Amino acid sequence: MRVNRQVRLRARPNGIPQADHFEIIVAPLPEVGDRQFLIRNDYLSVEPAMRGWVSAIANYSTPVGIGEVMRSFSAGTVVASRHPGFAEGDRVMGMFGWQDYAVSDGSNVTRKVMEADLPLSLSLGVLGLNGVTAYFGLLDLGMPRPGDTVVVSTAAGAVGSAVGQIAKLMGCRTVGITGGPVKTALCREAFGYDAAIDYKAGDIAAALREACPRGVDVYFDNTSGAISDAVLAQLAIGARIVICGTASVASWDPPPMGPRVERQILVKRARMSGLLVFDFAHRYEEAVARLAAWVREGRLTYREDIVDGIEHCPAAIAELYRGENLGKRLIRLVHA
Amino acid sequence: MRVNRQVRLRARPNGIPQADHFEIIVAPLPEVGDRQFLIRNDYLSVEPAMRGWVSAIANYSTPVGIGEVMRSFSAGTVVASRHPGFAEGDRVMGMFGWQDYAVSDGSNVTRKVMEADLPLSLSLGVLGLNGVTAYFGLLDLGMPRPGDTVVVSTAAGAVGSAVGQIAKLMGCRTVGITGGPVKTALCREAFGYDAAIDYKAGDIAAALREACPRGVDVYFDNTSGAISDAVLAQLAIGARIVICGTASVASWDPPPMGPRVERQILVKRARMSGLLVFDFAHRYEEAVARLAAWVREGRLTYREDIVDGIEHCPAAIAELYRGENLGKRLIRLVHA
Repeated sequence: MRVNRQVRLRARPNGIPQADHFEIIVAPLPEVGDRQFLIRNDYLSVEPAMRGWVSAIANYSTPVGIGEVMRSFSAGTVVASRHPGFAEGDRVMGMFGWQDYAVSDGSNVTRKVMEADLPLSLSLGVLGLNGVTAYFGLLDLGMPRPGDTVVVSTAAGAVGSAVGQIAKLMGCRTVGITGGPVKTALCREAFGYDAAIDYKAGDIAAALREACPRGVDVYFDNTSGAISDAVLAQLAIGARIVICGTASVASWDPPPMGPRVERQILVKRARMSGLLVFDFAHRYEEAVARLAAWVREGRLTYREDIVDGIEHCPAAIAELYRGENLGKRLIRLVHA
Repeated sequence: MRVNRQVRLRARPNGIPQADHFEIIVAPLPEVGDRQFLIRNDYLSVEPAMRGWVSAIANYSTPVGIGEVMRSFSAGTVVASRHPGFAEGDRVMGMFGWQDYAVSDGSNVTRKVMEADLPLSLSLGVLGLNGVTAYFGLLDLGMPRPGDTVVVSTAAGAVGSAVGQIAKLMGCRTVGITGGPVKTALCREAFGYDAAIDYKAGDIAAALREACPRGVDVYFDNTSGAISDAVLAQLAIGARIVICGTASVASWDPPPMGPRVERQILVKRARMSGLLVFDFAHRYEEAVARLAAWVREGRLTYREDIVDGIEHCPAAIAELYRGENLGKRLIRLVHA
């Protein structure tokens, strides 16, 4: 008899969720009702935004309830269907949660994965929300022009590495900020950054001055904190700052103090915009089509860091924030 | 024999310039060369931006040099001309400095004042940079939609009062933040704000919650500091923040600390933009024409606070930052 292992939220964290905020429960396989279908999850995603999803403070989504299955993007295969729009064998990506199986009526499906020639796992990374976030954040909010200097924080990450490569495809000079020599090498060698700065190696302001002699035209920010303070001090006139994530800040309750940005925003006539990729849901297919074409042409590369087994889920968010992964962190499920 | 009194910068302030940073010098009347003309200044402007113009730290204009005439907008009359484009009797507004007379080749003229039916002084206020700043800052960066809640800091000031009224003309709900009962009454009664908040009267967060039950869609900010912190905590989804000035911060060297804004910008998908009105120089006439029409129709009102005599210049910037003026502060020159 098949069962459904689920990772449920056990306690609400203040800050980054740790392994003991979750527990793994063995539940019965769900029934498939009329106009429903059963998804077997093949890959579960782990992403920085999950911190926000379990946070009690005001946010852009209802917090996951205590005792509920952890919300996540997952990619899987339809294994049974009573729904006219989904057939057995269809590959789907959506909000199926950290569990083996999910019943769906289609409303939590982000998209059917039609790129049959490419691995399903990409639908959670470079062809998933990470790639789409990079695409719309950089192009629609960052508005890069050829010759612009584009700085990316968490430059080797799933979003950042795509931002850097897309900026390069747009004719920009790209500067990646990341932690440690392995990731800076990855930035230069795999993701084509013109310069890579190791924020753990010392004077980030001096490194930025050297890498951005004409200032920073676009800053794609995944970190906030001291890294952002250094970048904001070196904006060019008319700079665009895209706030995509705040990975370096452990807790926003209350917000930590930092140097006020208003004067720099004013003097540089800069623009700081918050990015939520869900606002672009009506345009996902446009982005995925373009990203997939770049992947097929070998112009957009990616790294995956896949671990096997649902038992890796509880600690996975904290590991992500410690920067332990090299590439998009996915959990691959091993089904009996 | 006519002379030229000039207010010169004597010492460089760190922060808000005080009376003793200036001195008044009596200079000879300047010669009018070929393709030049002589302007008799009738009104000298005083504005918050002057703090930046004398600051040594990086800014959007070259600092006024020690011993130089204080940079200012002035409005005056051409009293002698050897320039084909300017005739005796023309009324002009531009960067003529804090002095009785200025020789010009036309390059420092912002505009000829063609609204012969309206007082010349308006060319330094509601039909000058203040009005134009309000116009482009609100409409182009703030992008108000009918029904939006628009919050304005220094709401009774020369810029703020125009912002509030233009927002009202656009069909918005307007909330002004200002200091003291006289100015809040002015906001409600003269400038038509739906609500006026006295930031000196106590709990600004509670007052904002009451005045903005659906959150803040547009924040036109002239203050920075604690007032902005309170407004930013109550943004609506998709809010636009226009940074026009930072009047409440005495010194930016180094920048003071405040609560980090990144998370709120991200979660609310807000946009914070810096406004420098000079970036809109090619569109001034569009703004002035529309503002003048509103003034003539009685739909846009203004307050002027005019003092007579150049000897009021040295202390005028500090007085402005203490909020002592009620309306646009101008110095009217009394010529011998």
